[in-house]
Amino acid sequence: MPRGIRWPKGPNCSRWSCEILQTDLMRVSFCCTDTKAQPWLEGLRAALPGAAVEAWAAGAAAADYAIVWAPPQQFFDEQSGLKAIFNIGAGVDALMKLRLPRGVPVVRLDDAGMSVQMAEYVCHAVIRHFREFDGYEADVAQGKWSYRKPRLHADYPVGVMGLGVLGTRVSRALVQFDFPVLGWSRSAKSIPGVQCFSGAAEVNDFLMASRILVCLLPLTPDTENILRHDTLSRLQPGGYVINVARGRHLVDEDLIALIDSGHLAGATLDVFRNEPLPAAHPFWKHPKITVTPHTSARTLREESIGQIAAKIQALQNGAPVATLAGVVDPKKGY
Amino acid sequence: MPRGIRWPKGPNCSRWSCEILQTDLMRVSFCCTDTKAQPWLEGLRAALPGAAVEAWAAGAAAADYAIVWAPPQQFFDEQSGLKAIFNIGAGVDALMKLRLPRGVPVVRLDDAGMSVQMAEYVCHAVIRHFREFDGYEADVAQGKWSYRKPRLHADYPVGVMGLGVLGTRVSRALVQFDFPVLGWSRSAKSIPGVQCFSGAAEVNDFLMASRILVCLLPLTPDTENILRHDTLSRLQPGGYVINVARGRHLVDEDLIALIDSGHLAGATLDVFRNEPLPAAHPFWKHPKITVTPHTSARTLREESIGQIAAKIQALQNGAPVATLAGVVDPKKGY
Repeated sequence: MPRGIRWPKGPNCSRWSCEILQTDLMRVSFCCTDTKAQPWLEGLRAALPGAAVEAWAAGAAAADYAIVWAPPQQFFDEQSGLKAIFNIGAGVDALMKLRLPRGVPVVRLDDAGMSVQMAEYVCHAVIRHFREFDGYEADVAQGKWSYRKPRLHADYPVGVMGLGVLGTRVSRALVQFDFPVLGWSRSAKSIPGVQCFSGAAEVNDFLMASRILVCLLPLTPDTENILRHDTLSRLQPGGYVINVARGRHLVDEDLIALIDSGHLAGATLDVFRNEPLPAAHPFWKHPKITVTPHTSARTLREESIGQIAAKIQALQNGAPVATLAGVVDPKKGY
Repeated sequence: MPRGIRWPKGPNCSRWSCEILQTDLMRVSFCCTDTKAQPWLEGLRAALPGAAVEAWAAGAAAADYAIVWAPPQQFFDEQSGLKAIFNIGAGVDALMKLRLPRGVPVVRLDDAGMSVQMAEYVCHAVIRHFREFDGYEADVAQGKWSYRKPRLHADYPVGVMGLGVLGTRVSRALVQFDFPVLGWSRSAKSIPGVQCFSGAAEVNDFLMASRILVCLLPLTPDTENILRHDTLSRLQPGGYVINVARGRHLVDEDLIALIDSGHLAGATLDVFRNEPLPAAHPFWKHPKITVTPHTSARTLREESIGQIAAKIQALQNGAPVATLAGVVDPKKGY
């Protein structure tokens, strides 16, 4: 008996029509922790009429497509016929640590409203630091009308590590504010107005030419702890760190030591090794560190549903996997 | 005897060479209150070799060119041969209230590094409000890891009043962050990606279609008090006001009343009727108003000196006044 027959509840259901329906019934399983399932299920059902879209529970029927965020290993262990796995975020580092069914493509969100959020977050943080708005705010809180000498963009080159969809958009946004913008990525890229560096051989030149550093790298074994004492020491004096990628890119105590020694001016951090950031962590109260609760670029439900549904339809219509945006390369891990 | 002969101090000075020099001696008078004169004088002398560049003092010789910021009436009363007046700011409202020598062109700074500062300031304020970064900051100060539902750009149309050099750059910067951007100006303008309104007939449509309002108008009798109860009431509910033009554009008590009634969500203000903002003014402590000390777009000395010196050279070389950027139309007052 074919898996997962469900009898439609509508009044016109006959045995015959249900069998027809069931013949090409596409099954989509939604398995996302920390996510309110109901609005996703409703949106996906509307976007994929004729598909059976269900929230996963242990022992559920195997699915054709999986839509996941931090799923348990058991989810994959129970699958037998997956055609593709869709991650409802840009970072797949947690997913890639699981045993995934062999040969099944993993597809990340491709922008889906995240790049503009990231450009907003990073530009806000860069401008806030460059223009000393925190300092003005502290003065105003004391009733002080203060003057600070304007800083020059030329003295604040911004280096963006990671030039994927998010890093590219962030770089372009910074260029329009007249900052010198540098970019670093694993493989060589070219972005108008951005001085691009690539590979391990050029990372030190990139760091030494940067004063504000923005981390937008994927988290892989190669990039874990990449923001540590020896790399951050290479930033120009008065350097500033903005981490919007993953907490495990950064060695927390090295950042604090370099701020406290005066080499770095401060940091804006949106991601942490443990989230929520533990109550006792020194980042919470450090006067030169701005903390936000992993809010730099949220998954937007409607955009994501539209994007994932369109990709599922494309695959169902026979499109090759390689034509989809956001397919993860298992060797690179992103 | 020709005015203002000065004997060069160099070792090779002979009577004869000094007379030659004096024949086309161009006199530039610098009369800027609240401005440290020495670095300007040094920069101008370097940029205009052969010119006599002096800080004005009562009774000084008349000048060919005036470089001014908030000069006293006496300065102009003593002039007899001015060819042009250069204002070291973008706004000439204070200058236009003086009795100026008839027929002498007034030239504003034309960008000179100000438009990028304005784009930074306004984008920072818009993003900070839209993304609720003040709210997150308050939560973090209490050790709270909080969640707020992402807002949609479509719900936050930004209206920019004034589409000169600064307003145009600000509008373009906002467009790249995917906000719906509207513009309003006295005469019709066209900016890619911006829905442009113009003239008194369209101001209400513009206001009703805007939620965040950015004021970048010149201050003239027509625009004084333009941000008042009836205009601000037309903004969409939850409206937000950013004033980076002049304090006299805004009726302070109307803004406060509309915030306190809940129609407006708040404001970011950089300019005030009296500056420094008086200690007793309610803006200082209002929980929904962010105050900065007129820092949105500072005059940058080097850029300004370069621009003014180039314009003086052009006039000296016979260029018609109309070919200069930033010439003030006395009828419009900007």
